[in-house]
Amino acid sequence: MTTTPETKTPETTAPEPATPRPEARAPRGFADRRAADLALERHIVDKVSAVYERWGFEALATPAFEYADALGKFLPDADRPNEGVFALADDDEQWMALRYDLTAPLARFAAQNWETLPKPFRRYAFGPVWRNEKPGPGRFREFIQCDADTVGSARPEADAEIIAMAAEGLRAAGLGADQAVLRIASRKLVNGVLEAAGVTSAAQTLSVLRAIDKLDRLGPEGVSALLGEGRLDDSGDFTKGAGLTRSGIDAVLSYLAVTADSRTAVLDALDGIIGSTRAGAEGLADLARITEALKALGVGETAAVIDPSVVRGLEYYTGAVFEAELLLVTTDEKGRAVRFGSIGGGGRYDDLVARFTGETVPATGFSFGVSRLGAALRAAGLGDQSAVRGPVVVIAFDQGDMAHYFAAASELRSHGIAAEVYLGQAGMKAQMKYADRRRAPAAIMLGGDEIASGRVTIKDLDLGRALSAKVADNQTWKDERPGQISVPRDQMIAEVRRILSAAQAD
Amino acid sequence: MTTTPETKTPETTAPEPATPRPEARAPRGFADRRAADLALERHIVDKVSAVYERWGFEALATPAFEYADALGKFLPDADRPNEGVFALADDDEQWMALRYDLTAPLARFAAQNWETLPKPFRRYAFGPVWRNEKPGPGRFREFIQCDADTVGSARPEADAEIIAMAAEGLRAAGLGADQAVLRIASRKLVNGVLEAAGVTSAAQTLSVLRAIDKLDRLGPEGVSALLGEGRLDDSGDFTKGAGLTRSGIDAVLSYLAVTADSRTAVLDALDGIIGSTRAGAEGLADLARITEALKALGVGETAAVIDPSVVRGLEYYTGAVFEAELLLVTTDEKGRAVRFGSIGGGGRYDDLVARFTGETVPATGFSFGVSRLGAALRAAGLGDQSAVRGPVVVIAFDQGDMAHYFAAASELRSHGIAAEVYLGQAGMKAQMKYADRRRAPAAIMLGGDEIASGRVTIKDLDLGRALSAKVADNQTWKDERPGQISVPRDQMIAEVRRILSAAQAD
Repeated sequence: MTTTPETKTPETTAPEPATPRPEARAPRGFADRRAADLALERHIVDKVSAVYERWGFEALATPAFEYADALGKFLPDADRPNEGVFALADDDEQWMALRYDLTAPLARFAAQNWETLPKPFRRYAFGPVWRNEKPGPGRFREFIQCDADTVGSARPEADAEIIAMAAEGLRAAGLGADQAVLRIASRKLVNGVLEAAGVTSAAQTLSVLRAIDKLDRLGPEGVSALLGEGRLDDSGDFTKGAGLTRSGIDAVLSYLAVTADSRTAVLDALDGIIGSTRAGAEGLADLARITEALKALGVGETAAVIDPSVVRGLEYYTGAVFEAELLLVTTDEKGRAVRFGSIGGGGRYDDLVARFTGETVPATGFSFGVSRLGAALRAAGLGDQSAVRGPVVVIAFDQGDMAHYFAAASELRSHGIAAEVYLGQAGMKAQMKYADRRRAPAAIMLGGDEIASGRVTIKDLDLGRALSAKVADNQTWKDERPGQISVPRDQMIAEVRRILSAAQAD
Repeated sequence: MTTTPETKTPETTAPEPATPRPEARAPRGFADRRAADLALERHIVDKVSAVYERWGFEALATPAFEYADALGKFLPDADRPNEGVFALADDDEQWMALRYDLTAPLARFAAQNWETLPKPFRRYAFGPVWRNEKPGPGRFREFIQCDADTVGSARPEADAEIIAMAAEGLRAAGLGADQAVLRIASRKLVNGVLEAAGVTSAAQTLSVLRAIDKLDRLGPEGVSALLGEGRLDDSGDFTKGAGLTRSGIDAVLSYLAVTADSRTAVLDALDGIIGSTRAGAEGLADLARITEALKALGVGETAAVIDPSVVRGLEYYTGAVFEAELLLVTTDEKGRAVRFGSIGGGGRYDDLVARFTGETVPATGFSFGVSRLGAALRAAGLGDQSAVRGPVVVIAFDQGDMAHYFAAASELRSHGIAAEVYLGQAGMKAQMKYADRRRAPAAIMLGGDEIASGRVTIKDLDLGRALSAKVADNQTWKDERPGQISVPRDQMIAEVRRILSAAQAD
């Protein structure tokens, strides 16, 4: 037994501990996850893994830590601070950092093992990532991601495959065909429109990308101002614009406005705007091949659309980019309609492995937030709720009859029914309350009389709750004991099964 | 696209990057895990979770980080350095550390949520833990543990339940009845023998515990010396002994030497040595109740034994302690017999929650190393090898026929068969080599002629490998194409299924 002061128990008459007791709290921005969340997470992992493996992607797990130099400063979202990682110096003075995504470790792994890997290398990964950011409501510093990437294929078909597989994964997780859409664009298309708009300098490029990124928030007019002279916002702050000409602005706006009924029709419309530029033509050719492959892979026009307004991480990606958007509309606690929006995304990034080897290795991948998908599934009423169902609780009346309780619990378990013996010190009433808190479907009562007469009393807790709402007075309740039944001991399993199947049918 | 120097591709004629390229390597003591390892891990998680949930334990996941003060300095193994954690200061100057086990976070969680938890609270958890120690061969700084604990029950039956459940979990994971044993002892028994041996001071207690801990390594004689005057080891170093009297030494040695055919018989024998001491009598009474419960739970005498020589973490635990030992004997790379030994353990610890609340909360639990169990299962030939089987590879001959390849892969997947189209740029021969590296069971060939004639060529890669070893000359090989068959396109699924079932039968 340790003898540090803070472990003194109340029974010892020790003086106040020298070290004050620590407060029991999880660190800021970190959350505990309980059974229902974890069941949903496991459901997602199982379903999505099965899909990804069927597509020939193999599982890979890299460590939580990478050397800071190997991790680099790359994040798909441009605005994140470089210092947004949890880093510490190892005892040999090398800096290590917890991974902030699953792509940077993949690049390190691929570079390290390139010679022996089958190429192209397809891998998927589930795992936590850590971001050292200001926590806020619903904003965590640790969350689970799922990534799938193909490293070593420059073919646009590799992008198509990732898109098709992502769509199938989301379906397998439980989303309906009309609940999610993959939106596809390309950095090359944007390069084409930059060319068409006469943009040449890196600074101007950045301003245009930032303006495009604000389409959702500011609408075409706001973007137009940011592409031109600049924009005065409501607070009176002026943002300097990209300084494009009128025709340049029009090119960008007409590019962003393109929509059509089919992927091919969108490409045709874009061809009229950027088809004559070098980058645009290249991007359109890539997307044409992606479109063809998606068709061969049976991906419907509503499951994956080409949408030039997608600008996700354009500074990071080098070719196709895609975003998975949930179309689910739910209501928040104030009854307002809330769209789930983006749940993940990805694209082609051809430079990550080159950081290590100097050799450009073409790669493409898709990443989604597992907890975010879980929240969406729950909102859609699709969550696997079975795990919140507790075990059957065997009530403990008497220490001398413990063997009977254990035997009953064992028998239930051997029939695949979750069961436990109550092991606290409380009386009958508190044990029933415990069973209620556990969301137990039933309680098993083996009192002395019952054991002697070879019988068992089973309380259907769901039914009991339902009936108790209806029973008028306390006396009727006591006399009739709703939801409680006495059966011969050898019918216990059959009776519990009946209760469980009735509960499932609800 | 990022413009930092190190991302320049070889095509650009950039000068040597200002920042040298980082070396692609995982941090010291951290390992990447590939598909076969992860399949085994998932198998263990699935099987053990199912058992633990059937016993009424609910899943819980706590964050990677805890506040350093909440984590404390407790490790079950006494000799670990206090500084063995990865810690860093948060931006508000609070120190956080990565969890080094799953028990300390449970104590924090239980203290934080005590009011609302059903009590006793039973939870299980799978997850990585991190130890900032010197890495070595097979010694990692990140590994996966699985814990199950009951918090809030002082009953010895709670210990019995943990032991029985641990045994069932190991069986469910794939260990045979004769491949693992749970060894049970108790800190109270040791206190009894200390009392019997006349030990009173804390310093002497520590010396005796340390001496007992060396029984495996030094045998009774070495322990005897350490209990008495001291011991001179082979290198000439002298370790001062605990200074027990002859009769004290004999009491400890006879205590450690007790074995018998049944748990009850061991308790009877121990009664003769320590039954008259207060702590010993208490410990024996606890173990008698554990023994009774194990019998009611159907745990056989060989699955769980009472073994007083178990001294695992006696400084940490307050009551029963248990250790799971694998009896598997395998051979190492030099052909020597190696016993797997301990794979996990646990016991009763009643003081952890008190660190936060001041209130002693009785708790008991069991923890095992998931990778270690995986290694044991693999050594026993019990590993799930299905994941190392790669997907069926559809050979890509011609960009113009890509849609046919994708359609074939989709069709295979829709029948539950893992399949992929080769998406690199290499020729036929390299694609076959790729399929081989992926451990693909079959390759699908849809050349122009085959597509035109509505046929498909399927190469049974296992059979091909087997036959190629037998075929005498190259010409025969070319003429007969062993393991290769041409069938009508609509028989592709049936033929691949035949190949897969033949491979599974091997």
